[in-house]
Amino acid sequence: MRKPIGIFDSGIGGLTVVKQLMKLLPDEQLIYFGDTARIPYGTKSKRLIEQYALEDAAFLMQFDIKLVVVACNTASSLAMDVLRRNLDIPVVGVVEPGAVSAAGLTKNNTVGVIGTTATINSGSYASEIAKLDRNIRVLGQPCPLLVPLVEEGWLDDEVTVLTMRKYFKGLMDNHIDTLILGCTHYPLLEETIQRVVGDKVQLIDSGKETAKVVQQLLAEKGLLNISGEKTGEDRFFVSDIPAKFEEIGSRFLGRPLTNVERVDFDQFLVQSGFPANMHKAENNLANMR
Amino acid sequence: MRKPIGIFDSGIGGLTVVKQLMKLLPDEQLIYFGDTARIPYGTKSKRLIEQYALEDAAFLMQFDIKLVVVACNTASSLAMDVLRRNLDIPVVGVVEPGAVSAAGLTKNNTVGVIGTTATINSGSYASEIAKLDRNIRVLGQPCPLLVPLVEEGWLDDEVTVLTMRKYFKGLMDNHIDTLILGCTHYPLLEETIQRVVGDKVQLIDSGKETAKVVQQLLAEKGLLNISGEKTGEDRFFVSDIPAKFEEIGSRFLGRPLTNVERVDFDQFLVQSGFPANMHKAENNLANMR
Repeated sequence: MRKPIGIFDSGIGGLTVVKQLMKLLPDEQLIYFGDTARIPYGTKSKRLIEQYALEDAAFLMQFDIKLVVVACNTASSLAMDVLRRNLDIPVVGVVEPGAVSAAGLTKNNTVGVIGTTATINSGSYASEIAKLDRNIRVLGQPCPLLVPLVEEGWLDDEVTVLTMRKYFKGLMDNHIDTLILGCTHYPLLEETIQRVVGDKVQLIDSGKETAKVVQQLLAEKGLLNISGEKTGEDRFFVSDIPAKFEEIGSRFLGRPLTNVERVDFDQFLVQSGFPANMHKAENNLANMR
Repeated sequence: MRKPIGIFDSGIGGLTVVKQLMKLLPDEQLIYFGDTARIPYGTKSKRLIEQYALEDAAFLMQFDIKLVVVACNTASSLAMDVLRRNLDIPVVGVVEPGAVSAAGLTKNNTVGVIGTTATINSGSYASEIAKLDRNIRVLGQPCPLLVPLVEEGWLDDEVTVLTMRKYFKGLMDNHIDTLILGCTHYPLLEETIQRVVGDKVQLIDSGKETAKVVQQLLAEKGLLNISGEKTGEDRFFVSDIPAKFEEIGSRFLGRPLTNVERVDFDQFLVQSGFPANMHKAENNLANMR
């Protein structure tokens, strides 16, 4: 099937998932939406994250996609139910694939998960793993500083190492043998994390696992593009283009990030029934006087 | 005049400004709006920051305020023009007061400014200082990690000290004698910053300077509440209530943060002409099928 795959994330971290999809499924056309205007999701409430996830998915649905990948761990942790309830195409999040992989790999039944505060507080990885094996102990550690450290580009700086030592202490004291990188930003820190936790701990990149699940699901449902050629150019949409955008984006994607299109997301929301834009904001204030 | 003062910020950092206003103007009723659903502003584009500032101000205008304080350095750096164009009450930002204070205090005409990437890239402090004295050299340093460090509560941690040493190196090499804390979060780091830069560098808390300007402006315009009693209870509105909210908020305010009201900001925007809410998002997706 020649329809594209849609991927959304709270920002551009999801490009690490895109990178894996490109590697595994080179013929599939990808449509990416990064909600850079409302990033981060990881510090916000469930209610808001659900709303944002629905709006992001609505944006992608315009492109007649055959499957949507929720590249954001936070949205995958908190909004899968509401997304599946409201979409009539397959929805793949990053939590389930990461959890399945961890459950299969741990030998001492002690798995660590690192992620945003919202992801860890949701207990999403723990409950997915519990579905597979109730004997596995899952220890979660929120690491809110790791995202800004990645965005600052301090990938193997001593500040980063010191921050990780603090965050990971509880996990190491409990002898985890498997560590899930539960945030799309973390694959960029993979080497440094490995150095801090030591060689005996296996790292799991949820994005990589997710790409495998997408491939499998498309094959099972007969949705793979088997035409032998790529259907169309990949497209990258974002809701805001902040400073250092291309530099950071290219770091995530592992190749130059070009032809990014800024969406007037408010405009999109207005057209589909809701929101705000600058012009309306000005009018609105004028009317309130 | 018994009308309240309105204050908005991208989140709850602006409570450090509220704290100063409470100290200086105990009889004034304060209405605070923290846009926690869309925090941070500091990494976003000018266009988006202007829109958000207008919407935040529109929310406060409902309360018949006599003056609006833009507690957010990023919004003060990028949205003062659009706010002043659209509001018919005085608008006070935090940049101008901080700049005036720094220009008056520096002896070697070398001032440092630390803030978010958007604040520093805007050159707002430099251009305000240039209006006062063209001979003063202003060196800006974006410090994106300091906000998450404050929110993590690592106020005098070695990670924080090490991060500051890296950020401040260029400023110290250039022998600044005055340093503007150009972000509402930074007053919480004041002691640690002072330790890192040494006793010879004077720190300027823009929020504290802003409270003085508000007092002066209200007095000049005959807008002070001189009734001898507080008009009404202070009110605190936020657009989202994330994890650790009260803990962090109380740290900023310097006293327990209670009776915070969550606003359905999307609902507000819809009513005044624009936006989104959960219900609409679901309907919208249903209609797109």
